[in-house]
Amino acid sequence: MSSPRLLNRSFDPASNGLLARYRAVRAETDARAAPLSPEDQQIQSMPDCSPAKWHRAHTTWFFETFILADEPGYRPFDPTFSYLFNSYYEAVGARHPRPERGMLTRPSAEAVSRYRAHVDAAMAALLQKDDLAADRADLVELGLNHEQQHHELLLTDIKHAFSLNPLKPAYREAPELAAPLAARAGWVELPPGIYEAGMGEGGFAFDNERPRHRHYVHSCRVSTRPVTCGEYLEFMAADGYRRAEFWLSDGWATVQREGWEAPLYWRRCDEGGDWLIFRMNGEGPVKPGDPVQHLSHYEASAYAAWRGRRLPTEFEWEVAAGLIGLDKMGAGSGWEWTASAYLPYPGFRTAPGAVGEYNGKFMSGQMVLRGASWATPKDHSRPTYRNFFPPAARWQVTGIRLAEDM
Amino acid sequence: MSSPRLLNRSFDPASNGLLARYRAVRAETDARAAPLSPEDQQIQSMPDCSPAKWHRAHTTWFFETFILADEPGYRPFDPTFSYLFNSYYEAVGARHPRPERGMLTRPSAEAVSRYRAHVDAAMAALLQKDDLAADRADLVELGLNHEQQHHELLLTDIKHAFSLNPLKPAYREAPELAAPLAARAGWVELPPGIYEAGMGEGGFAFDNERPRHRHYVHSCRVSTRPVTCGEYLEFMAADGYRRAEFWLSDGWATVQREGWEAPLYWRRCDEGGDWLIFRMNGEGPVKPGDPVQHLSHYEASAYAAWRGRRLPTEFEWEVAAGLIGLDKMGAGSGWEWTASAYLPYPGFRTAPGAVGEYNGKFMSGQMVLRGASWATPKDHSRPTYRNFFPPAARWQVTGIRLAEDM
Amino acid sequence: MSSPRLLNRSFDPASNGLLARYRAVRAETDARAAPLSPEDQQIQSMPDCSPAKWHRAHTTWFFETFILADEPGYRPFDPTFSYLFNSYYEAVGARHPRPERGMLTRPSAEAVSRYRAHVDAAMAALLQKDDLAADRADLVELGLNHEQQHHELLLTDIKHAFSLNPLKPAYREAPELAAPLAARAGWVELPPGIYEAGMGEGGFAFDNERPRHRHYVHSCRVSTRPVTCGEYLEFMAADGYRRAEFWLSDGWATVQREGWEAPLYWRRCDEGGDWLIFRMNGEGPVKPGDPVQHLSHYEASAYAAWRGRRLPTEFEWEVAAGLIGLDKMGAGSGWEWTASAYLPYPGFRTAPGAVGEYNGKFMSGQMVLRGASWATPKDHSRPTYRNFFPPAARWQVTGIRLAEDM
Amino acid sequence: MSSPRLLNRSFDPASNGLLARYRAVRAETDARAAPLSPEDQQIQSMPDCSPAKWHRAHTTWFFETFILADEPGYRPFDPTFSYLFNSYYEAVGARHPRPERGMLTRPSAEAVSRYRAHVDAAMAALLQKDDLAADRADLVELGLNHEQQHHELLLTDIKHAFSLNPLKPAYREAPELAAPLAARAGWVELPPGIYEAGMGEGGFAFDNERPRHRHYVHSCRVSTRPVTCGEYLEFMAADGYRRAEFWLSDGWATVQREGWEAPLYWRRCDEGGDWLIFRMNGEGPVKPGDPVQHLSHYEASAYAAWRGRRLPTEFEWEVAAGLIGLDKMGAGSGWEWTASAYLPYPGFRTAPGAVGEYNGKFMSGQMVLRGASWATPKDHSRPTYRNFFPPAARWQVTGIRLAEDM
Repeated sequence: MSSPRLLNRSFDPASNGLLARYRAVRAETDARAAPLSPEDQQIQSMPDCSPAKWHRAHTTWFFETFILADEPGYRPFDPTFSYLFNSYYEAVGARHPRPERGMLTRPSAEAVSRYRAHVDAAMAALLQKDDLAADRADLVELGLNHEQQHHELLLTDIKHAFSLNPLKPAYREAPELAAPLAARAGWVELPPGIYEAGMGEGGFAFDNERPRHRHYVHSCRVSTRPVTCGEYLEFMAADGYRRAEFWLSDGWATVQREGWEAPLYWRRCDEGGDWLIFRMNGEGPVKPGDPVQHLSHYEASAYAAWRGRRLPTEFEWEVAAGLIGLDKMGAGSGWEWTASAYLPYPGFRTAPGAVGEYNGKFMSGQMVLRGASWATPKDHSRPTYRNFFPPAARWQVTGIRLAEDM
Repeated sequence: MSSPRLLNRSFDPASNGLLARYRAVRAETDARAAPLSPEDQQIQSMPDCSPAKWHRAHTTWFFETFILADEPGYRPFDPTFSYLFNSYYEAVGARHPRPERGMLTRPSAEAVSRYRAHVDAAMAALLQKDDLAADRADLVELGLNHEQQHHELLLTDIKHAFSLNPLKPAYREAPELAAPLAARAGWVELPPGIYEAGMGEGGFAFDNERPRHRHYVHSCRVSTRPVTCGEYLEFMAADGYRRAEFWLSDGWATVQREGWEAPLYWRRCDEGGDWLIFRMNGEGPVKPGDPVQHLSHYEASAYAAWRGRRLPTEFEWEVAAGLIGLDKMGAGSGWEWTASAYLPYPGFRTAPGAVGEYNGKFMSGQMVLRGASWATPKDHSRPTYRNFFPPAARWQVTGIRLAEDM
Repeated sequence: MSSPRLLNRSFDPASNGLLARYRAVRAETDARAAPLSPEDQQIQSMPDCSPAKWHRAHTTWFFETFILADEPGYRPFDPTFSYLFNSYYEAVGARHPRPERGMLTRPSAEAVSRYRAHVDAAMAALLQKDDLAADRADLVELGLNHEQQHHELLLTDIKHAFSLNPLKPAYREAPELAAPLAARAGWVELPPGIYEAGMGEGGFAFDNERPRHRHYVHSCRVSTRPVTCGEYLEFMAADGYRRAEFWLSDGWATVQREGWEAPLYWRRCDEGGDWLIFRMNGEGPVKPGDPVQHLSHYEASAYAAWRGRRLPTEFEWEVAAGLIGLDKMGAGSGWEWTASAYLPYPGFRTAPGAVGEYNGKFMSGQMVLRGASWATPKDHSRPTYRNFFPPAARWQVTGIRLAEDM
Repeated sequence: MSSPRLLNRSFDPASNGLLARYRAVRAETDARAAPLSPEDQQIQSMPDCSPAKWHRAHTTWFFETFILADEPGYRPFDPTFSYLFNSYYEAVGARHPRPERGMLTRPSAEAVSRYRAHVDAAMAALLQKDDLAADRADLVELGLNHEQQHHELLLTDIKHAFSLNPLKPAYREAPELAAPLAARAGWVELPPGIYEAGMGEGGFAFDNERPRHRHYVHSCRVSTRPVTCGEYLEFMAADGYRRAEFWLSDGWATVQREGWEAPLYWRRCDEGGDWLIFRMNGEGPVKPGDPVQHLSHYEASAYAAWRGRRLPTEFEWEVAAGLIGLDKMGAGSGWEWTASAYLPYPGFRTAPGAVGEYNGKFMSGQMVLRGASWATPKDHSRPTYRNFFPPAARWQVTGIRLAEDM
């Protein structure tokens, strides 16, 4: 399990210092926003997305609200920001409506930079103290992991916004993916029995990864790599988007209503012609060896059904990750839809206070994704990580891995 | 397990004769429609509901389409009916749009009666043959269980329609519930370990109940009876509908958007006054000892969270049902929301052909309910039965049972 | 002006007796509902339409509310009906929401018949008195004209409902139209100058037809007959539905959104084939000599623009009607969209009390139609009659007459 | 008629030179955008509004498309802009969807400035030629008047956007209005008879102001000044927003649906407290002597009905403007809703080609406004000017003037 992408490198305060980590995570946020003009940072292209400026401010608000607000002598940068940049914490009070985040031309991107600097200075002073209480350090660690989640969202949200622009702007020159997948997929077999799943005590994890608990896994096998664009094109060529028998009922209704005939960001050059894909470096041809990405749980399920297979459960995925070895698994280029609904683990408890709203209240109507993507920060993934989105969501970097019963 | 409601009385063709069972089920449909005028049978009060006339025709269409259509010499009653009364079977062809079922003033309720008689005559001739193939008998049995599901829907749908009428019409004089629940709820403890769940081979069950399989259940306890109206009134009095901290995020959004402040069919007499409940026998006061019904999964979850408890998983429910004994369990008066998403069991396979669309394609975005209700036909429930509805649905007879970790 | 359709035959109480007229109008309502089953009378196929049963009850409610309620000793048939069958009179109190009229399976069609009989008996007793006050007689006359408006709506609403039924039921055997239009259209020239328009004192007219007033009309000419289906097919063949340059902006947006490519109730036999029209006697081929009907103001305007012409204003229409002679005008088979927005005449005053809501409050967002249709009662039209509907409405019997500047 | 605001100062090419006027109008656009950051210029706060950046680009596109594109040797600045910045000209080809104008973060505000400079250079070269054809000069004049219309929209659109921001940003320090209205309103009487209305030959006017034509005006009188905030507060205090009897039916439905209880941009300080108004210089208290603004045609009509008066027709308004004298009329601070639907004048003809789409196709579903506002360019109004908006629109600077029959 030496994959730099999926290994759990959660921070060790003894050796590195929490302050260094704080600075690194905060700097990464600004590095990701750097290619964006003030206008680019302003845009909210759909209610599910947020402006880059908002991501930068909200992650800062998290530290100000949950840590600095309790520090004696801390002066809030601007008292209106607690309203403007709260995301969904009911316990913290009223907040600006999510679909109207793109309406905030003020504060400017530059003012948000000053907000970040103000909070960073206060945080640096706090983190340099010798006697930071453990529960405070845990909250800082939570804030850093929270900001890393927004690292990914900042990229997926601006990708969506840019995709709507007829000019098809490129965010950067570098490609999204380092390399194509292995040419041939293999299978790893899972012996049936009781397995332990989830994160144990010690080290950072989100509350939804805990507690570690027993789960019975049935005899099955899991593919050693995700599905490629070339394989997915076969599904499309077989009229996969026009044959109801492969689809979940909600999925079929969505296909009809939305007129889907390919993954998100795919576009035909001209009628009947080849497909182009919009990526962070602009629009270009499909690469058959790349993993297929930006598709919904519905499409993932339909593809699997067409192949006579199914998606793995999140537990099967976790077991397979251990058996294959993450470095050989082909994961890390995109999140992988599982067959598991996003529900609490046995014995799950929400944390007390506002941070208890972090995960638990979203355990309804969503599916679990496992893995990581090219947009995930390098030290922000682990085999127990549970990502989750509604089954129709496509703007995240989402792909398919197959499983089958034995 | 002597409860007449929850015992699996699936039909034994050797002793009773499939024809007798066919006649009994078909007669029950007409008995349930008998109190309804042609106008009552016409109405579709929301897209989720169907007109009683449509239920009567669609259950008939099932036998005509899946059984009689293959019989040599069978003459369809009316060739347009295959379009009008298909529900959701993509493999069988185009169909009338679901939200427009209430637009069909023709054929009349009386014409549907003639349709039923036509199909019943052909079915009787078929079922009197000595050599009915086993797979045909299985399809008949499926058709009968299908019609029994519509027995329940016919009642829940007309209840919804009547509830919208300012005249508050009564469907019948008899009350919905035979008796109040036990005054005190107890708990049954579940020892942790591997359990078998689901239906084994032999006897009728829907495909979603199979295969029987192993499941690890954690240490917990389950209440011996459902939550009562009196207990639920305490939640309401504690501002349960106005405190976000108990709610799933989707649930809280629904409460806000819909203005919920009580279960469906509850109405305040006058401002600040007592609550009335609309039931099949008209509107009347809340009875504190009755099970609380007609609430969503969101409300069930919020109530449980407020009590510091949770809903049982469907596996916990099934184990508890075996331990308590169904006759002592207080179930059968209403379906009970579980904490389980409606997903396929390990090894689940859809049946080939159109009837394969019966259950599998709905395994997305819905929650499992267990038990039975006052609207369920007496021989149409069993401990493995999996009912399922979206988490916001309230027009079914749905209630709450609590569980907690140990 | 001997046209039986367009002549103002408003009632002469001296010769015929108001009671006789009351009975005739009321009988016509029931005659129009007679071909409809209880289910047919129940249906509301869109919010703009009302169930036939509702038309029958609401017209009865008018007499009960505005006349009988003030009579000493009158006992309302059912006190809930004042809520159920109020249409839009804010001054009379709360009312059942318009889009939910089709939800009322109770009271039944038969109960509405009893309601009608109850009110008719009380009205007969009242109208047989010698000393009916003039203002009371005026209200009765208004109620009768009101009911005659519902005569037409009852037919147009059930036509819409039947058109949605794949069985395409026929309301009656008789055709809608007595005869095709004159083969050739001519023109009548209007000399410029001041004309008087609207209804003078004496005789019944709706408040929106008054006062009679002066209006300057410019030099123009008006066609002697409405546009035919054959002429309209030329517009369709010239890609009229796909060429934005002929359309009002709102009209073009509607065409795109709704996918219009022909008038309402037109359907292609099969791809590329001939057009069928759904009529009161079922579906049949287009008759090129018939007036084109069931189109919106947008389509009427676009057709006129394509011909290099325009629609007449309501004043030009009224002047032309006088010049041509209504019996030679080809009017009476369908209402004709004018270029005039529905606005108050100079000096218009709403009547005091609830009946003041009859017309005035609708003078926004609608266009005036002139003439009459095959669904209009024979004695319910006159040259000053102002019908009005929103420009996108198509389910009324609406057609086109051309005009042009000179 | 010496009011600098309402006088028709259409350009005299002989004395000033079209180039000077071109430069003045173009400079005014940039002056109005100058207080706005790139983010401010990006925002589209509702589909009816456009980003300031878009206004700046679209007005430039007009000159490029309708004038420069035909000039030999002209090189378009960017070929994609003809798609991005077309507003509604169907004849010119496809265009970016209106509700997604705010999605265009690229081209940047700075790139739009370069676009403007590019087109300005080419236009300057063209306008310096001695032999500019008359029809070309007319198109330039149309383009300048078009840009002046966007001067006003740029302000009203950014006002709407800023109003949604909880920070309530000020666009400028200067107040909107120079001075309050006259304390007392008087009346001017209109003798009945035929008047001429609309613009005659010669001088610039939009096509919808022509031709000048005869119109019969009835005896009435018109107020000498618009309604003030103080007067409107009396309507509010009299429960005007809760009494259906004063409202058009569509207006009442809008009040209910939108929860209106005051004009747009009015907000209560705190419950039951005084009203604040958001203006271009931020939020501040109501000034009773100011004209009431930012209300819909529905509210204007309801206010007039409550006063026992009505709105003037656009013809009455035009006659009264001549009689009172524009400088004494109190107009110019806000547009005034009239009782006239926006329809073509007798003899109206759309111009050939794409510019024919300028006005005519919008003559449906809108009401005429007369006058001018504080946002209107000083030389962009005249007594015949016809502004028009849908009756529910409130984000324009709209007010009320009363009339009554005599």
